[in-house]
Amino acid sequence: MPETTTSAAGEPGARGAYEPTDLTVPTRGRPRASYDRELVHAILDEAYVCHLGFVRDGRPVVLPTLYGRVGERLYVHGSTGSRPLRMADGGPDADPGLAVCLTVTHVDGLVLARSAFHHSVNYRSVVVHGTAYQVTDAEEKRAALDALVDHVVPGRSADSRPANAKELAATAVLRLGLAEVSAKVRTGGVNDEPEDLSLPHWAGVIPLTTRYGTAIPDEDLDPSAALPDYLAAL
Amino acid sequence: MPETTTSAAGEPGARGAYEPTDLTVPTRGRPRASYDRELVHAILDEAYVCHLGFVRDGRPVVLPTLYGRVGERLYVHGSTGSRPLRMADGGPDADPGLAVCLTVTHVDGLVLARSAFHHSVNYRSVVVHGTAYQVTDAEEKRAALDALVDHVVPGRSADSRPANAKELAATAVLRLGLAEVSAKVRTGGVNDEPEDLSLPHWAGVIPLTTRYGTAIPDEDLDPSAALPDYLAAL
Repeated sequence: MPETTTSAAGEPGARGAYEPTDLTVPTRGRPRASYDRELVHAILDEAYVCHLGFVRDGRPVVLPTLYGRVGERLYVHGSTGSRPLRMADGGPDADPGLAVCLTVTHVDGLVLARSAFHHSVNYRSVVVHGTAYQVTDAEEKRAALDALVDHVVPGRSADSRPANAKELAATAVLRLGLAEVSAKVRTGGVNDEPEDLSLPHWAGVIPLTTRYGTAIPDEDLDPSAALPDYLAAL
Repeated sequence: MPETTTSAAGEPGARGAYEPTDLTVPTRGRPRASYDRELVHAILDEAYVCHLGFVRDGRPVVLPTLYGRVGERLYVHGSTGSRPLRMADGGPDADPGLAVCLTVTHVDGLVLARSAFHHSVNYRSVVVHGTAYQVTDAEEKRAALDALVDHVVPGRSADSRPANAKELAATAVLRLGLAEVSAKVRTGGVNDEPEDLSLPHWAGVIPLTTRYGTAIPDEDLDPSAALPDYLAAL
């Protein structure tokens, strides 16, 4: 199982690819970078939590948070009192936005080489750079919140009570456009030095997968309530 | 299964707890914050990848990376040419360090409430604020690299070829002390409004776990080589 890497899917501006920029071309590991739109979407859609980075008082802050995607827009939400959401709100006249970096990572396997140096993990990650703005349009906000719920389980927003006016008012939503985006993927096997191949250390890959456990019904749920098909299918 | 939250394990300065600071006391979700040392260590030790945030040209950058822990120090590594590692190197006389935020998150379950608003995930996260410094001491660097390998699989560093001089020279290691640290944990069930309990939507938790797959031996491995016990035990 040789190591394989995903290369850039297209030239700058190519259909189906994001345009590489100074922010999205890595200084290292360039062969693993990809700007392919479908790959980026697939990595984003599979994860539950992103890590949202922003700058506060000159220092970096990285917080895990749920997110949703609608086409080429990502949405994160939070209480209207939370720090990043307050920071993005420059007032109704001129929202300056909040510079963010939103990163999503899947760890797919442990790569155990014969040499300590070549230990690694197989992974898929997406890094999105951009400016996040508060969503003020009521219709966009509703669609964003649906996307956040459907991101947890596809189809779930249609099988839950929609947010009411009070809940909508208590929730702030940030929009981040997918423009400065890159993916990195490592797949395949170990990458040992030729002179190390005969060393007496086991080498290979331990795959990692995320498994759904048995659903635990809420204690107040009618015991006769069946698990919906879209949940049973997980 | 009512929702339970973990509260602060101790007063500031208490034994076994990190001291809360302006950076580590959240503005929201305070009941879920914990400064318990054992909890923080357990969350850190279980994950494979952290999300490392730093500021470059005034903008946030969040990159996934491997890490290791030795007591109250975390270590990340990378090529000496990589951006954060170059940024942390202010020269041999005065390393100014690099302000970072290192975050680790486990998603333990999908929390499906009757209302869209109360959808959530069960999670455990740790956020570390601090200044990262390049490790220049050769012995500390070796111990840090061992910790990085043992973080992937405990005991693995003893069963692999140690880094040679060339590999050591090509690898930069950053040290981040565990001082400004907080954990957040959400466990338990859904948290619906009382008036929503009779709605006809399934509600409950879908647990998520990480599973190890069957080990895939390297194609150059002697077919008679047995999987070591410490890997078979995963």
